[in-house]
Amino acid sequence: MTPAVVALGGGHGLYATLTAARTLTKDITAVVTVADDGGSSGRLRSELNLVPPGDLRMALAALAGDDEHARLWRDVVQHRFRGTGALAGHAVGNLILAGLAEVKNDIIAALDELGRILQLDGRVLPMATIPLQIEADVVGLEEDPRISRVIRGQVAVATTPGRVRRVRLLPGSPVACTEAVEAIDNADLVVLGPGSWFSSVIPHVLVPEQRESLIRTRARRALVLNLGPQAGETAGFSAERHLHVLSQHAPSFRVDQIIVDSGTVPPGSERAHLARAAAQLGAEVRYADVSVHGTSKHDVGKLGAVLGDVLAE
Amino acid sequence: MTPAVVALGGGHGLYATLTAARTLTKDITAVVTVADDGGSSGRLRSELNLVPPGDLRMALAALAGDDEHARLWRDVVQHRFRGTGALAGHAVGNLILAGLAEVKNDIIAALDELGRILQLDGRVLPMATIPLQIEADVVGLEEDPRISRVIRGQVAVATTPGRVRRVRLLPGSPVACTEAVEAIDNADLVVLGPGSWFSSVIPHVLVPEQRESLIRTRARRALVLNLGPQAGETAGFSAERHLHVLSQHAPSFRVDQIIVDSGTVPPGSERAHLARAAAQLGAEVRYADVSVHGTSKHDVGKLGAVLGDVLAE
Repeated sequence: MTPAVVALGGGHGLYATLTAARTLTKDITAVVTVADDGGSSGRLRSELNLVPPGDLRMALAALAGDDEHARLWRDVVQHRFRGTGALAGHAVGNLILAGLAEVKNDIIAALDELGRILQLDGRVLPMATIPLQIEADVVGLEEDPRISRVIRGQVAVATTPGRVRRVRLLPGSPVACTEAVEAIDNADLVVLGPGSWFSSVIPHVLVPEQRESLIRTRARRALVLNLGPQAGETAGFSAERHLHVLSQHAPSFRVDQIIVDSGTVPPGSERAHLARAAAQLGAEVRYADVSVHGTSKHDVGKLGAVLGDVLAE
Repeated sequence: MTPAVVALGGGHGLYATLTAARTLTKDITAVVTVADDGGSSGRLRSELNLVPPGDLRMALAALAGDDEHARLWRDVVQHRFRGTGALAGHAVGNLILAGLAEVKNDIIAALDELGRILQLDGRVLPMATIPLQIEADVVGLEEDPRISRVIRGQVAVATTPGRVRRVRLLPGSPVACTEAVEAIDNADLVVLGPGSWFSSVIPHVLVPEQRESLIRTRARRALVLNLGPQAGETAGFSAERHLHVLSQHAPSFRVDQIIVDSGTVPPGSERAHLARAAAQLGAEVRYADVSVHGTSKHDVGKLGAVLGDVLAE
């Protein structure tokens, strides 16, 4: 049996999980946040009223086949235009996805067709078929530290000098992607994270039908913590705090295994705190060496091996 | 035997010839002018220092396969972005070609790969692998009608209110595309025109190696005249004058058959003049009904049948 793995996230974190999952199976579904408003994606979304394509494109690249043609298209999809003009910095794959989506009037059909050209191991899906916005309650932006301000937009939230308390999606209860819900329902392993916690990870439990499927699925559920806090949205956050804010946003969400790089949480009281926070999610903490030595990047081979262990249990 | 047909031109004229040629064979090579500087192509060429992709893209679309996927990609390639932003009006295929060409650093490899996705009947090649400019000597732009001015750029030449006397390519003797020269050498039928006479047709005899191959090939050579003069570059031109200016630009170039729509040249003295001009090119004039009734568009079915007759002789 080929195990079915669903990985949820966005950006480089999801890219790492998908690459790790490929060491286990060819049946991989990526479910991708669609709230990005920066860079090439942000320009395309505002210009064409499109689901931001950048994180979808990266997920496609992560799952692209090894055939000569697939590798060429992966390189083309990831290539950013040179020059100093209106196209400079646009990833070619974002433009191809945008064109396919306009012609098909269907982002999922567009992803499936580009996936066919890339000879994908699996499928890439958006967590919603309309572009979403992230809005956050942020403190620490005023003299009075109790005053909370609303910050809107993924880039603004990710880089706020304040402390994020809570995030919401706009519109508030978006319709989930049916195919993503089905994939979660039928998965053997679901992996959430790593990634920008408030803008790439937590949004996945803010889409009601998707959250319900994450709760009811009989799949093993793994949460992969980041290797360090991110400047901006999680500056100064402990591992434990990452779990607390996730629980706050989805109190009934449960996890089986929380994968934590051994080097990021020293043995002792910090691990005790983390174990208690994990228990509130119904989870055990699995410590393992999953980083590229001396960096804050996940080693996809090591992460894949740990995911394989979680799957095998 | 599958006959090998090479069609040379640019824009809508080439699109018509290619579509007509598909009624005869699957072995079709399009050789496309690369001097366009208008619209999406012009923006891309100036931004990315790229061979202008628009006419290449249209030729790809003309030869795209009939499979469901090929038809989708043909539609995507031809689709122009909506909206009011920096991408508006860019044909998606131009951007895909540009991305492939930047990654491969080779426009011919880029065309072959996009042709593979489009399941092409044949191949699309540029007449040169570097972007070219058109420069024209134009009279009638000053009070004194004898004064000639130099007009530069395809759009400027095509729309000049003056009378074009002569065109040149910049750089002056561009290196031909080796694959195009080989295709002409090995063809059974070569078709030049219809199209913008000075900016899409005549440039093909201004690339020295390509002109030589057009002269030495043992293929049947057909020249397809336009259904009417074009506002701007050939305003007021008779059919005969089209042949004269072609001869002026390439005195040793010879043609076997000149295909003229019966409705465009009335029987009588005009046909006698045209026959004399054709004889200077070594050609016979073949009158046939090749237009869509009541329009100045070629009927690709009728044109295909006439090309079939030329090929069979």
